[in-house]
Parts: sequence; structure tokens; C-alpha cells
Amino acid sequence: MQIGIIGSGSWATAIAKILTDNEHHINWWIRNEKTIPYIQQRKHNPHYLSNAYFNTQLLNMSASIQTVIEDSDVIVVAIPSAYVADAFHHLPKTIFKNKYIISAIKGILPHHKYLFHEYLQEHFQFPLQQYFTLLGPCHAEEVAAEKLSYLTFSGMDKNVTQQLASYFKTPYINTETNTDVIGVQYAAVLKNIYALGAGIAHGLEYGDNFLSVYIANCALEMNRFLKAITHKETDKTDDNDYAASVYLGDLLVTCYSLFSRNRTFGNMIGKGYSVKAAQLELNMVAEGYNASKCMVFINQQYHTALPIVQTIYEILWEHFPADEGFQKIEALLV
Amino acid sequence: MQIGIIGSGSWATAIAKILTDNEHHINWWIRNEKTIPYIQQRKHNPHYLSNAYFNTQLLNMSASIQTVIEDSDVIVVAIPSAYVADAFHHLPKTIFKNKYIISAIKGILPHHKYLFHEYLQEHFQFPLQQYFTLLGPCHAEEVAAEKLSYLTFSGMDKNVTQQLASYFKTPYINTETNTDVIGVQYAAVLKNIYALGAGIAHGLEYGDNFLSVYIANCALEMNRFLKAITHKETDKTDDNDYAASVYLGDLLVTCYSLFSRNRTFGNMIGKGYSVKAAQLELNMVAEGYNASKCMVFINQQYHTALPIVQTIYEILWEHFPADEGFQKIEALLV
Repeated sequence: MQIGIIGSGSWATAIAKILTDNEHHINWWIRNEKTIPYIQQRKHNPHYLSNAYFNTQLLNMSASIQTVIEDSDVIVVAIPSAYVADAFHHLPKTIFKNKYIISAIKGILPHHKYLFHEYLQEHFQFPLQQYFTLLGPCHAEEVAAEKLSYLTFSGMDKNVTQQLASYFKTPYINTETNTDVIGVQYAAVLKNIYALGAGIAHGLEYGDNFLSVYIANCALEMNRFLKAITHKETDKTDDNDYAASVYLGDLLVTCYSLFSRNRTFGNMIGKGYSVKAAQLELNMVAEGYNASKCMVFINQQYHTALPIVQTIYEILWEHFPADEGFQKIEALLV
Repeated sequence: MQIGIIGSGSWATAIAKILTDNEHHINWWIRNEKTIPYIQQRKHNPHYLSNAYFNTQLLNMSASIQTVIEDSDVIVVAIPSAYVADAFHHLPKTIFKNKYIISAIKGILPHHKYLFHEYLQEHFQFPLQQYFTLLGPCHAEEVAAEKLSYLTFSGMDKNVTQQLASYFKTPYINTETNTDVIGVQYAAVLKNIYALGAGIAHGLEYGDNFLSVYIANCALEMNRFLKAITHKETDKTDDNDYAASVYLGDLLVTCYSLFSRNRTFGNMIGKGYSVKAAQLELNMVAEGYNASKCMVFINQQYHTALPIVQTIYEILWEHFPADEGFQKIEALLV
């Protein structure tokens, strides 16, 4: 199987490191043409995880996304959800025929308000059976430093999922598999919203006691949503599994990380900055910002009680004061 | 109802602050007689939470535990589990007759290897119906600073539990109630063992990705044990509830606290100190140390799979090398 990687940010670079450490040849789409000769010569990505060195004989880099996809049987997509449509919309409708896609995207496509597999279904008639996810608590910096991390691969076909996961098993990566390919994606989206909220709470000067209660209740709310949306075409996940690494583990690493963009952004909101001022100051948009709007929209079809998500949405998008919002949340926690 | 407090450490002092902030008169057992005139004069405990000031007109302090208990209808016990038997063994067998006891003890009585209510049953024929717990994620320092915290009161009689909880409701304390009076105690014991393990992992230089997976799996293991021991005399707790503050919340605040004694102790073990050297260096015993031995003993009657607890026990008590122990744990995590 020829593997292609779409993206050259920190997570894509970490994935390229994992696969080449496993001696896999990879086709690698790198949008900025100038980066390619740099990596060839210096053997590391100048912009991300510059301490991760590559065996460049295993790299077939290209600035043409179409070439990389055409040359590959398995395509790992690791670009921010907001850029997916831009990168993919001009591709031929049949380009993904008979290929496997592994999504490492942790978000919702903001303009379409849906998950990546739904975009692929609509634009490429790409079947869910050939779609897999690669998710879990994984700071890319720790992968570069070869600190043991756990990746969960999800897909409807257990055998193919296990085969794809095996490409990523290294001394510093343990792999898990499950069939909840839709639930894991929503968990990855929700955790960004909750981490943004953890930042708001910190900015409002709540302490560690409160933070732990808040995060435990985020886990409760997330579990409730995941149960509600459990799709019939994927296996049912046992309740208890929602404490596994791809659900609770990812929530924890994101909420407790002091360096998470969501948390930093939320912290500024909690301290009284406007959304606009926080975006200008940080020069970025936190994933949880768009995700909160998308989840409120998506939940209109499920009618699940998501009061934490709803309140964070109102703080970010409807000028609801952060301190009043968290007073509402305070009253809900158990 | 006249309320008595047994203990004058940091958690007992925080409880005295909460109750007197609510204008309750309290009888307060303070073992060291010299501390009593100090608190009378200076209005704060010289040894713990010295920034918490008291309305001393509400305090009836005594160095006689028997007097404090006899004068009270509700006795809040907040001393380390290791000192309970010493403090209580000489008391008259009928002293607790018709009284309520609220346990704020987060541990197992190490010599007896059982929970406080079992000690009270055996030595005072004290009925579980009059026994309540006060638990949850609560750094005493944050209570002193009046940072919003959540306390969970558990007891078999819902009405009495709610009444007792109401004494503690202040602007900075939210109270929850449930009927799982045995499960919450085991959760409080287990979390100390898991936090000690988090310290070992940190000492062994695992990173944040691993820590989040480890803690998520501790939650899974804890949930499994709590389900197994659910006593018939207490209400069954819905699975989902194990993500509530008194279970998952307390686990999180303890595992992620950099200042927890369990974590500090574990960190030294992970860095290669012997148990004896770590105890001498830190001049204390972490609760999780004895708890690991007790839980392995107690679990002999339940036969629940507790591989994380078992491995931490072997590292602490059976000279199993910490690095090899965590390699075993690595392989179990999902």
C-alpha cells in the first residue's frame, strides 16, 4: 500500500515521522514549494517540529495535491478543518475511487458545518466504509520527542482498521482500534469547545477544584451526546468505553494543556477581551470557536441537552457576558 | 442540631470555616491544647490555612474528643485515616448513639484495612443509616481562598443527607447529594493510589499524552470496581454518574495537582528512590501508599480486575521495578 500525507503542519509532520520511522515510503503534499528542497537538504521541516529528522530517501514530496493522491492507496489527511474545502474542491470527482482515507482532522468544516466524511460523501461520493480516523491525545511535540503516545484508529471494517493501524505502531506509538468512526470525530470536536471553556474559567479566576468539576461534567455532557448520535451503521460503543483514551483521554490532555490554543483563547475571553481582540492579539482562530457554532447547529437535529456547549457558544457568538455564562454553568454541575 | 468537628488539620480547618461562615456554632476538637488560646486570640489556626479567619464567638474548642462528641448531634470527622483508631478506641461504646456522623476521611484505616463506617460498625455498633460522607474535589487552600468548590454528601437517607448538606452551602461551596455512601469512599481511596501512580509516571519521564491516557484508564478501572462493589443496601448509581465530581472530578484534581503528596511521593519512586528514602526525604507517608496494599487485600473478596492498582502495589510493596511496572501498565491501556 502506498501512503500519502496531505498537510505539512505540526501534526502532519509528526505523522510523517511515525510512518518513516517505520520504514514506509510516503508521498507527501507540501503546499509551499520552497519547503520541499529545504527538507531534502536539511532533513527536517523548517516550520514545525524542527527537531524531527527524516530519512529523506523515504520521502516523495510534491506541491501538487492531485499527484500525491493519485500516487497513493491510503491518504492521511492532516490539515486544519477550515482549509479542507479550499484544498479539495478542485480535485476530480473520482480521484478517491478505491482508496482509503484516514482523517486526522480534529474539527468540523466551518462553512459546511459537517464532518470530513460528510464532505467526502457529498463531493466525491466517497463511502464511509473506506473512511477511517486517526485520533487521540497527541501533542505533536511529544511525538517528535518520542514520548509514548496512544493513537486510536476507527473504521467500520475491523480488519482494514487494524491493518492501517499497524503502519503506525512504533516503540513510541501504541495503537488502538474501534468501530465508532463518527463518535470519535464528534468527541474530537467537542473537546476543543470544552478546552476553550476551561480557558474562560481560568481567565475568570476559578480554581483547580472548580476546573476538575467542570471537566468531569464536560465528560458527562460529551457522553450524553455520543450516546444520542450513535449511528446504526457503526457498532454501538459500550458506555464505559467513553472513558477510553480517544474520548476522555483526549478531553483531558486538551483541557489541562497550558499551551493549547483553545485554552489560551478562552483565557483572554475570561479576562474580558472581546473575541475580535483575542483573535487579533493571538493572530489565530481557536478550533473551539467555530466548533461551538457548528455543534449548536448540528445539535438542532439531535435535541440533546448540551448546556455547556450552548453557553460557550453564547459567550463567543452572542455577546453573553462570560461571568454570567459561567454562573449558569456553575448551577448545572454535579 | 449542634455540630462538632473532629480534627484541626487543613481540611478540618476548612470545614470549620465553611460552617462558621454559615453562622453555625461548632464544637471543635483540637488535640494540641496550646492551639486553642492561639485561635481564641489571633482568630486563625497557626498551623493550617492561616489566612482563614474565624468568628471565635461561634467556636467552642476543646482538647477532649469525648466532650466534643457528647456535646454534638452531628460529628464531622476530618482526621487522617491512619489516626482514626488512636483517636477513637478509648471512647465509650455508646457515645455515638442517636448521633449522625459525617466522614470527611479520604482513606482506609491501614491496620484494619477497612473503611471508617466499618470501623464504627464494629467498635460502636454504629448503623450505616446514620453515617454520611462529605467528599469531592476540594483543595483546602482553595476553600480558604473562597474559590468555588463542590462538595458531595452521600447517605442512605436522602432527606437527612440533604439537610446535612444544607449546613455547608455557602457562596463558595456548592453541595451535591447521592446515596452511594460506600462507592464514594472507595473512589476517594482509589484516586490516591492513581495519583501516586501519576507521580511515578512523571518521575519516569512519560509525557502529557501518556498521562491523559493513564488517567482515563484509571477512571475506567475505578468505574469497574465501583460497579462490582455496589452494595444492595445503597441505591444503584447509573453508570454515567461515575463521571460526576465526587468520582471523576476528585480523580482529576488529585492526579493533576502538582502539590499532591501522592504525586510528589510517586515522582520520587519514579526517579528511582526507594520507598524508605522517599518517606524520609518527604517526612510523610502518602495516603496512596497504604491504600494500595489495603485495596489489593479488599479486592480479594471482589475479584475485580484492578491491574493498575495491583502494579502500583507491587512497585511500592514488593520491590517491583517502577519502569517495568509501567511497561506492564502501558500494554493494558486503551
